[in-house]
Amino acid sequence: MHSHVKPLEWKAGEALLLLDQRILPHQEVWVTCRNAQDVATAIRDMVVRGAPAIGVSAAFGVALESSLPSAGDLHSRVRTAAELLRSTRPTAVNLHWALDRMLRVVDSHAGESAALSKKLAAEAEAIHAEDLAANHRIGQYGAELLSQRATVLTHCNAGALATSGYGTALGVIRAACEAGKTISVFADETRPFLQGSRLTAWELQKDGIDVTLITDSMAGHFFQKKQFDAVIVGADRIARNGDAANKIGTYTVAVLAHTHGIPFYVAAPITTIDAACASGADIPIEERSSGEVTHASGSGEDGQLHTISFAPAGVEARHPAFDVTPASLITAIITDRGVARAPYDESIAALLATSEPR
Amino acid sequence: MHSHVKPLEWKAGEALLLLDQRILPHQEVWVTCRNAQDVATAIRDMVVRGAPAIGVSAAFGVALESSLPSAGDLHSRVRTAAELLRSTRPTAVNLHWALDRMLRVVDSHAGESAALSKKLAAEAEAIHAEDLAANHRIGQYGAELLSQRATVLTHCNAGALATSGYGTALGVIRAACEAGKTISVFADETRPFLQGSRLTAWELQKDGIDVTLITDSMAGHFFQKKQFDAVIVGADRIARNGDAANKIGTYTVAVLAHTHGIPFYVAAPITTIDAACASGADIPIEERSSGEVTHASGSGEDGQLHTISFAPAGVEARHPAFDVTPASLITAIITDRGVARAPYDESIAALLATSEPR
Repeated sequence: MHSHVKPLEWKAGEALLLLDQRILPHQEVWVTCRNAQDVATAIRDMVVRGAPAIGVSAAFGVALESSLPSAGDLHSRVRTAAELLRSTRPTAVNLHWALDRMLRVVDSHAGESAALSKKLAAEAEAIHAEDLAANHRIGQYGAELLSQRATVLTHCNAGALATSGYGTALGVIRAACEAGKTISVFADETRPFLQGSRLTAWELQKDGIDVTLITDSMAGHFFQKKQFDAVIVGADRIARNGDAANKIGTYTVAVLAHTHGIPFYVAAPITTIDAACASGADIPIEERSSGEVTHASGSGEDGQLHTISFAPAGVEARHPAFDVTPASLITAIITDRGVARAPYDESIAALLATSEPR
Repeated sequence: MHSHVKPLEWKAGEALLLLDQRILPHQEVWVTCRNAQDVATAIRDMVVRGAPAIGVSAAFGVALESSLPSAGDLHSRVRTAAELLRSTRPTAVNLHWALDRMLRVVDSHAGESAALSKKLAAEAEAIHAEDLAANHRIGQYGAELLSQRATVLTHCNAGALATSGYGTALGVIRAACEAGKTISVFADETRPFLQGSRLTAWELQKDGIDVTLITDSMAGHFFQKKQFDAVIVGADRIARNGDAANKIGTYTVAVLAHTHGIPFYVAAPITTIDAACASGADIPIEERSSGEVTHASGSGEDGQLHTISFAPAGVEARHPAFDVTPASLITAIITDRGVARAPYDESIAALLATSEPR
């Protein structure tokens, strides 16, 4: 198994390095985070993005904060840091899951501060390693669903960069390729943040996997032309009934897949399922700045990064960052504990009740 | 009726001025065309775009060519110019329609050259004026289809800039506003050329019509949220059975409208109907440069125009510039001769048989 790109690097007890995903693929710059505030800013500004990667980064943010010298009470300082990190982005549930797990370590610890700091670092490292392992299991389960030769459409980036380093949707594609299948990928560019062109195309190109870039608006045309055998996307939060929140535009792709009779798969670790959400209506949808719609960044002819505007000054723009795909449009949800299919209330409950990978 | 933006200005017998739509809304630069080659280059490079505006521009290109001093045979020179203009873009049928009309003037003329040149200029001016009048009639017919208070989604720019100066889809919206209706518009940004953000939002903003910009990928989410009462788009070519080619992404919007039970209207002059096409399968779809997908232009922080890349170097990208919406997804086709509804074979044949506006 060769090594894929990764979104973060942990310098134990000292720093969390985050690959700045805002300026990929033109520049590979690592942002150094030394405390929870640094990590919170990086998550909010999308230096790091992708539900699993956000969860892992937040856990490291708590661990970093706990290792800082300070006069105050460590328990309360760590709790404050966790709430700061929790407030960064509302939709991805992995963030809450990872922070809750870190806080359970705090709650169960009664000894001295240095020992707690070590425990928190170990817990964050475990979350990181478990996510990577979960990605590989998702890949194994998902790869079986693809034919020996298939063209797969994906939206946004549910790849190595969105996780600990293998990917959920792209993990399935990688695992299928590793199993000797011939997989071609069409990547929606995924406006407004362009994760498809900037991240997915880049990741797959680096791995030597055949990838073709299209604008989001072209997907329908290629469905009409029978270009796709399957759609695989990631998720930021999945409700108990199987409704799945994912990057804005995913719902449109799901409607197109349904209309054309093409299987639509959601690939996500079990930590993306929020048992507290009965349905997609309970999932909060983040509204981000309209400036991210009216502007875009990229590499200019001078090789430098430029931000350009392509809308008239003062125009109103909306920017819901996610949408919810109803379970009725989802063929299967591929998790690290197995594949769930309708009726999702039952299949998801069964997966949640399974504590070990099957 | 106040004056709207316009895409072209005819300096009789001397030049055709085209507003450079590649760099709107940041800069308003007029490109001067003095012969057919200038106009052909402008059409191919999308200085001017929009099926009716392309047709009108091509007619003026023929007129310009006929007025140039030259030793050669005027008839053959004009015919060569027409074929050059015809080869610029394959999908919009208005181009062929306008050129065929100009060539009929050539065919029927037996006198001296100066007289032919005058006739051709007059014919191009007539095409220009008739298109403007057709837009206003489309507006009248279409405005009746909208409620007193409605939010309309549009894709691409079927506005003043795409026509002689009032618009087809946006003409309907303008006419509804002029009739005292309260219309809000959501404009898809329309990647890759960004006609929605750069042109539609700009046009509507100038007219004081309420407009909200979204990325193409957001339309599905807002359909889900019941934001839209109707969709109105333009067309580049309509087949006899009602299948309509329009800017890439239109098909996806039509599928979404159908799924959500929202009326989907196509607004176009009768000259956009191609009686030679039995169905959408006969409409040629232009494939443009992949560089238009991997790059975008806009105004930088320095106020200058910049072209940026946001994809990894060497990535493969596809760029079908149009798609075909099947008649089954179209609620009605609004023309300058009236409104056609299913069965379209019959209703379109009836409109084509009508020589006068009804």
